[in-house]
Parts: sequence; C-alpha cells; structure tokens
Amino acid sequence: MPQARNKGVFMTNAIGEAEIGIRSRHGGPFGAVIVKNGKIISRAHNTVIKDNDPTAHAEIAAIRKACKILKSFSLKGCEIYSTCEPCPMCLAAIYWARISAIYYGCTRSDAEKIGFDDNLIYSILKGVKTASDLKTIKMGRSECLKSFKKWKQKKDRIPY
Amino acid sequence: MPQARNKGVFMTNAIGEAEIGIRSRHGGPFGAVIVKNGKIISRAHNTVIKDNDPTAHAEIAAIRKACKILKSFSLKGCEIYSTCEPCPMCLAAIYWARISAIYYGCTRSDAEKIGFDDNLIYSILKGVKTASDLKTIKMGRSECLKSFKKWKQKKDRIPY
Repeated sequence: MPQARNKGVFMTNAIGEAEIGIRSRHGGPFGAVIVKNGKIISRAHNTVIKDNDPTAHAEIAAIRKACKILKSFSLKGCEIYSTCEPCPMCLAAIYWARISAIYYGCTRSDAEKIGFDDNLIYSILKGVKTASDLKTIKMGRSECLKSFKKWKQKKDRIPY
Repeated sequence: MPQARNKGVFMTNAIGEAEIGIRSRHGGPFGAVIVKNGKIISRAHNTVIKDNDPTAHAEIAAIRKACKILKSFSLKGCEIYSTCEPCPMCLAAIYWARISAIYYGCTRSDAEKIGFDDNLIYSILKGVKTASDLKTIKMGRSECLKSFKKWKQKKDRIPY
C-alpha cells in the first residue's frame, strides 16, 4: 500500500522536526508537517523557548508557513501530521484553517506525563476543571457589540 | 474608582484596535490589548485576511507582541482585554502564556451571530458536537514516544 507507506513517511518527517527541536533546545519535543496532494508543503517544530513565544507550537507554526506558501488563510484539503495530539490551541487553529485530517502519534496523556498542560487545558475547556490562576471578567459588551454591527453591515467585508 | 476607569480605558483601546481592523479590512472585528502593572504593553487586531493567517486573531497577536517586548514566554501577572470572549485557540494560548486575567466584551454567541465558528469549536472541544469536516487518525505513537523520552531524559532541557 503506497498510500499507507507515504503516511508513515510524513509522520517520520514530523518526528524528524521534533528531533531537531530537542537537539537545538528550541522548545518541547513536538514536530508537525502539512501535506497537500501527497506532498509536504510545510514542516515545523515547537520553538516556544527559542522564540519566547507561547503560541509557537509545531502545528501553529506549520499552519502559518503553509498558509504563507499557499497565499491563503484556508488549508482545505490539507492534512496535518503531528507527533502529538494537538493541544486545544492547535486543535482550534486546525479547525480555523479548515484542515481536512489530523494524524497524530502521542496522546494528551503522554504529553501530561512529560510535564505539559494539554490535558489540563482540555479539562478546563470541557468545564471539568476550573483554572485556578486565571480570572475571567465580562465588561463593556454593549460598546464592543457596536464594532460587530459595523462589520456585519460593511458591504465590502470579506467573510472567512 | 480610578482602577475601574482604567479598565474602561484598556477596553476602549481594544475597541480602537477592532475599529482599525474593520476600516482596513484586515480581518474580523476583534481587538485586544495586554496590560502589565497598569500599563498597556501590546495591542493588536485580527489580521486573518491581511496576513493570510488563520491564527492571526487579536489575542494571539497581542500575546506574541507582549512576549517579544518582555523577552519571555510567560505573561504571568499580565491581563488581557479583548473585545470578544476568546475562541478556544486564544483561550488555550492565554493559558499557555500564563496570563492572570481576561476581560472581555462580546460573547461567543455574539460572534456566532455575525458568522464566526467560536461557539461551534467550543462545542466540538466539549464533545457536544462532532467535526464533520475533520478526520482524526492515530498512528506511530511508539515512534513518537521515543522523542518524548529523549526530551524527558535530557539534562539541559528547559521546562515551560
């Protein structure tokens, strides 16, 4: 099955990215590649430490690169191969990017075992746990709604 | 109450960012500012369209800018003011950035009413809805776990 073999090659490339990140001390041990029509169009590893950027997860970086290459904010029809189950930030980014399939290796529990909060953040989003260190306060809704209305009524707006 | 007045000023600045985005057609009508010790350290609006970047939400951009300015991947002690309830991507990014408080105006339902998927993605993450356009496939866990083990055993790793 050449197709299954290709999928293995894509994941091996994602692992290769993770390994670069580990050796270089760029961030956590995570890598990802994005594939379109059977070809890798972007690859990235976690660079949270190197770039002082808590959003620089492998999947986010791979999405940003792929969109730049395709000159589009939509990755419809693309697949992402990630060495770990995407955290909620990356999973939501994958939805926003309209990616069609996720292939992943390690799980959120595996990530938890090596010290990452993926599982905790999933639990908070599910409402199973509360975030002890984060306060949430609502304010100024009526003022903010004016911008929403303005945008909705704009004739030249670009929906996405 | 000067403190309450300041909070209003911060939110007004976030709205100002949203307005710039609307006028410039950079993306959705969303703005955010990050505050530390009572001072705005970064401000941003949604540039998904302008930058062809589905991750370029106001909160993500404000976090990235603030981290660059502070030369740190941690925004502990900072507050974020956003014109809309953060989507799951941005909320998880706020957790990863260790931000201490979120102030927001419009809700995920308000965003849904003007055509955005925030509410849908929350429902998918909660397991209440399924993502019809996104397949999820597990593969290669044992190979991926080797990278995790390598990182965990690395003596010079930087936890975050």
